Amino acid sequence: MAVYTEVSDEALTEFLALYDVGSVVSFKGIAEGVENSNFLLRTTKGQFILTLYEKRVAAADLPFFVGLMEHLSRRGVTCPQPVRNRAGEALGTLAGRPAAIVTFLDGLWIRRPNVRHCAGVGEAMARMHLAGADFSLRRENALSLAGWPPLFHAAEAQADSVAPGLRDEAATELAFLAARWPNRLPGGVIHADLFNDNVFFLAERLSGLIDFYFACNDAFAYDLAICLSAWCFEPDNAFNVSKGQALISAYERVRRLGDDEVAALPLLARGAALRFLLTRLVDWLNVPAGAKVAPKNPLEYRDKLRFHQRVRSAADYGLVR
Amino acid sequence: MAVYTEVSDEALTEFLALYDVGSVVSFKGIAEGVENSNFLLRTTKGQFILTLYEKRVAAADLPFFVGLMEHLSRRGVTCPQPVRNRAGEALGTLAGRPAAIVTFLDGLWIRRPNVRHCAGVGEAMARMHLAGADFSLRRENALSLAGWPPLFHAAEAQADSVAPGLRDEAATELAFLAARWPNRLPGGVIHADLFNDNVFFLAERLSGLIDFYFACNDAFAYDLAICLSAWCFEPDNAFNVSKGQALISAYERVRRLGDDEVAALPLLARGAALRFLLTRLVDWLNVPAGAKVAPKNPLEYRDKLRFHQRVRSAADYGLVR
Repeated sequence: MAVYTEVSDEALTEFLALYDVGSVVSFKGIAEGVENSNFLLRTTKGQFILTLYEKRVAAADLPFFVGLMEHLSRRGVTCPQPVRNRAGEALGTLAGRPAAIVTFLDGLWIRRPNVRHCAGVGEAMARMHLAGADFSLRRENALSLAGWPPLFHAAEAQADSVAPGLRDEAATELAFLAARWPNRLPGGVIHADLFNDNVFFLAERLSGLIDFYFACNDAFAYDLAICLSAWCFEPDNAFNVSKGQALISAYERVRRLGDDEVAALPLLARGAALRFLLTRLVDWLNVPAGAKVAPKNPLEYRDKLRFHQRVRSAADYGLVR
Repeated sequence: MAVYTEVSDEALTEFLALYDVGSVVSFKGIAEGVENSNFLLRTTKGQFILTLYEKRVAAADLPFFVGLMEHLSRRGVTCPQPVRNRAGEALGTLAGRPAAIVTFLDGLWIRRPNVRHCAGVGEAMARMHLAGADFSLRRENALSLAGWPPLFHAAEAQADSVAPGLRDEAATELAFLAARWPNRLPGGVIHADLFNDNVFFLAERLSGLIDFYFACNDAFAYDLAICLSAWCFEPDNAFNVSKGQALISAYERVRRLGDDEVAALPLLARGAALRFLLTRLVDWLNVPAGAKVAPKNPLEYRDKLRFHQRVRSAADYGLVR
């Protein structure tokens, strides 16, 4: 979430007239996240988030994202609920971009998660995995194994300017994973980006999940592997096994991992770390002029990758069997 | 307004505990403006703006700004009202910075103002000028004549990289204004930054003024001159005399300009244009790494300056006598 596109008053009024949301009383750009332009919209009828989908989100994928939020919401997963306009459509056009209004979710994202936050995320992710089981649309994970080589090639020439040896390190890992990546693990709809800024809490109670714009069909355990890197490392990039244990055991109280998933977890964690290393590297090397977001440091994920390379089994993450 | 500083959950909770504002239900960074970090804060008791004052705002000036908002608010000027903590203080410390909570103001800032918006601004500015008359604190205008040479010197070496000849053009104007700048015009507290993103409207009714962090004691007509440049030019930098007339005549319905102010208006408008040319130029040449704001184009104000240089009298702005 950020602001890449200005919305004129006339265009906003015209757009809102298609909806039964009342008239606008406040409209402010939100300075969070990286992919889309997001605005906090207050109307005479309530508070909403208005999102303009920028070019990194494919318009063809939007029905999947919007449908998924509706689907999960109906099954008790607290997430933004798309607001349909009077024609029954959840997607419109504003300032030349696809746009949607979703309900506003109370809660704060946690800057420094503790063990209890990690447990909350594990449980919510497992519930989401189960709730997505009967969702009818499919979306391939564009940022899994097949998506990594193009990212690597986009960044490799300049990678060593970020850190000496980074190019070779990424190339070696890419080859290692390509030879071993599992493709028969239990799967379904995963969030694929459940970082701490996409999970809201009120005190220590999880109040909702947001930002489903990387959601796709993939292995459930891969989603968990992403969270291990996103939630269970300390600011100095040391893995906190108490957090790992809290995350995994809370997940397993809702959905127990199979032996194949447990065995694959270290490899999946390496893949997840490489995925974020590569996308952050590409973003780092290509900051657009005038962007109102700061790119995230790719080296954080190099360090996490190195940790996962040293892991012997899922027990090192705190999994208890 | 933007976000330069992260606020941890613990720090926020600790800070809010000093206030009688209830407990937090939402906290989002706002992607607007350039000087401070601003967050939209929702609590169980309502909606607020939380501001962290970054280094460009001098801590010694904060009592002036906060006191002014309270003063104006009591006199019927709709502007954010500082919320005092249980100790009766409107200024606190959060994330190592001075911080304040102010009330939330409904309304939108107008991306493309029309004649009626310009009239609204003129009237509100005049009311603000009158309401500030008995405000007891004083703050010199750090960005008036004496403040321009340091800005010029900070930018002159690189000015021509932005546009050929820009250095000499600014130097000539600076000398011209230094020889003629008026210092005996009627004055008092002025806003000094009343751009369209600092004025809120609901439909075409002005609903409030925000961002008093350049407010200072200076000539009233200088404030009006700033607005002529900020509100009355079209996107192609052509002056719209209907907007100028609307702005000035609405101002004069509340506070009539004296002959000295009318005579000085073109010169004041040149000074105001040079001030924004110089500050934008310095910002343009010094974008901090990781900034979540895009600098504004200084050349917009070079073009406006050139217009004001050609003005013969305030009649060219639409003033009727």
